[in-house]
Amino acid sequence: MAPTDRYISENTFFVRYAETDAMGIVHHSVYIIYFEEARSHYSRVRGADYADFERSGYWLTVAEVHARYHAPTRYAQQITARCWVEELKSRGVTFGYEIVDTASGKVHVTGQSKHVCIDHQGRVSRIPDWWASVLAADIPKPPQG
Amino acid sequence: MAPTDRYISENTFFVRYAETDAMGIVHHSVYIIYFEEARSHYSRVRGADYADFERSGYWLTVAEVHARYHAPTRYAQQITARCWVEELKSRGVTFGYEIVDTASGKVHVTGQSKHVCIDHQGRVSRIPDWWASVLAADIPKPPQG
Amino acid sequence: MAPTDRYISENTFFVRYAETDAMGIVHHSVYIIYFEEARSHYSRVRGADYADFERSGYWLTVAEVHARYHAPTRYAQQITARCWVEELKSRGVTFGYEIVDTASGKVHVTGQSKHVCIDHQGRVSRIPDWWASVLAADIPKPPQG
Amino acid sequence: MAPTDRYISENTFFVRYAETDAMGIVHHSVYIIYFEEARSHYSRVRGADYADFERSGYWLTVAEVHARYHAPTRYAQQITARCWVEELKSRGVTFGYEIVDTASGKVHVTGQSKHVCIDHQGRVSRIPDWWASVLAADIPKPPQG
Repeated sequence: MAPTDRYISENTFFVRYAETDAMGIVHHSVYIIYFEEARSHYSRVRGADYADFERSGYWLTVAEVHARYHAPTRYAQQITARCWVEELKSRGVTFGYEIVDTASGKVHVTGQSKHVCIDHQGRVSRIPDWWASVLAADIPKPPQG
Repeated sequence: MAPTDRYISENTFFVRYAETDAMGIVHHSVYIIYFEEARSHYSRVRGADYADFERSGYWLTVAEVHARYHAPTRYAQQITARCWVEELKSRGVTFGYEIVDTASGKVHVTGQSKHVCIDHQGRVSRIPDWWASVLAADIPKPPQG
Repeated sequence: MAPTDRYISENTFFVRYAETDAMGIVHHSVYIIYFEEARSHYSRVRGADYADFERSGYWLTVAEVHARYHAPTRYAQQITARCWVEELKSRGVTFGYEIVDTASGKVHVTGQSKHVCIDHQGRVSRIPDWWASVLAADIPKPPQG
Repeated sequence: MAPTDRYISENTFFVRYAETDAMGIVHHSVYIIYFEEARSHYSRVRGADYADFERSGYWLTVAEVHARYHAPTRYAQQITARCWVEELKSRGVTFGYEIVDTASGKVHVTGQSKHVCIDHQGRVSRIPDWWASVLAADIPKPPQG
């Protein structure tokens, strides 16, 4: 389930024919690419371009990915990829995802990906402040009172 | 060059990270997929869904494809795929394509694809009238006078 | 870690250029495809072709996939995909995977995928006996004593 | 038709499930990747690794690609990709391809790709001698007499 206490980005697009397989449905590996584009979109709508992050000398390398397939999607179906920050640490971040049918809101695929910040020499690094602040805003505040 | 005498569809999207290769640019095979999505979009904006065409018992199988690479595109670049009907015959159709940078209009890749209409038993077939009429409107009229 | 008590299939191949991304390494979604080809190979070397399984009226649909990335792989690297049955149930099966460098044996990626047997009408089904027997042979025998 | 007067490399492999589409056949864009792997294999069997070529400061960028689809291929089909040098120039090379069914030899897809040698600053360059000599051996000698 998508959380209700933080920012969730949404990008909507049509399934491409090339993304289907001989079962007539979207191949399960393609959702990993939808997840990736969803986090690209996430940073884009938050005002921070991942391409700039890379150019500044870093990568958010993928350490782990998980997907759960609830229902198939098909060619030309309009779907929405929802993406949020599940957890932000000093050197890494975990994103959560939901792929839903745009019209009905039905959840088709859910997933998570864990990332580690490395520099271009491959060393694990602290996420730079400007990038962490973009992501940090999404972490839920402790309850007031 | 895109023709000026017929309908041209345009769909705009961002290059996905997964579409790049170790040269740091979009892999040349990916444009073949952009072409395909461009012709999906073409029929969509013309009011005819290719998925319906398939469900009616036909396929526009790909007989030939050609791409010419003028300039590379990169991750997160916003590009527009332009698509038009180059030639319509009773049993086949040729589409033309241009992949341009959305902001500058610079042409990055051009191409064509030739298709043959077959039924689900694999027999070459006449393009059904309802589908041909969608495409036929795009063929230039002979000059008046 | 790959188990030592059951059959493990191995298929060896070279990383394709198209499988790399702008980080200069194999894109993380590609390993999901390596996993799939590894289980195709698994059934092939066990004498049962997954294509025949499909033709007999069933699919092993993917319910869940997980990958953990230990080290990147690169273009032209020769790698070996190891695959085994982690768990066999009446209506489903879980495969385990290891992607290793062929020369050094170093483990680059590990993963699992969970599958549910469905018929071509989409109904969850018992795995047919001939197919289950292929997979069952891999389940470890209880210790003698 | 593959030429009979020069070296032709052959690499044999199985079609992966992920390479199929909802028509139940290999997606037409995938052959562009088979072509690429065929030329990787070509240089490999000729004793020159394209990865080394890249590391030496060059790329053979793709200027043009063409494919003609004669017959579909399907999941788990064993196919052979044949590759040869069609034309070698000082700054570029054209490769030819044939994708055939391994068992029957039936030709399924044919194609060509044109490449331009550039350095890592993007400047068109002469193909270095060591690399040209690898390719030059394949160009037919003029008839004696």
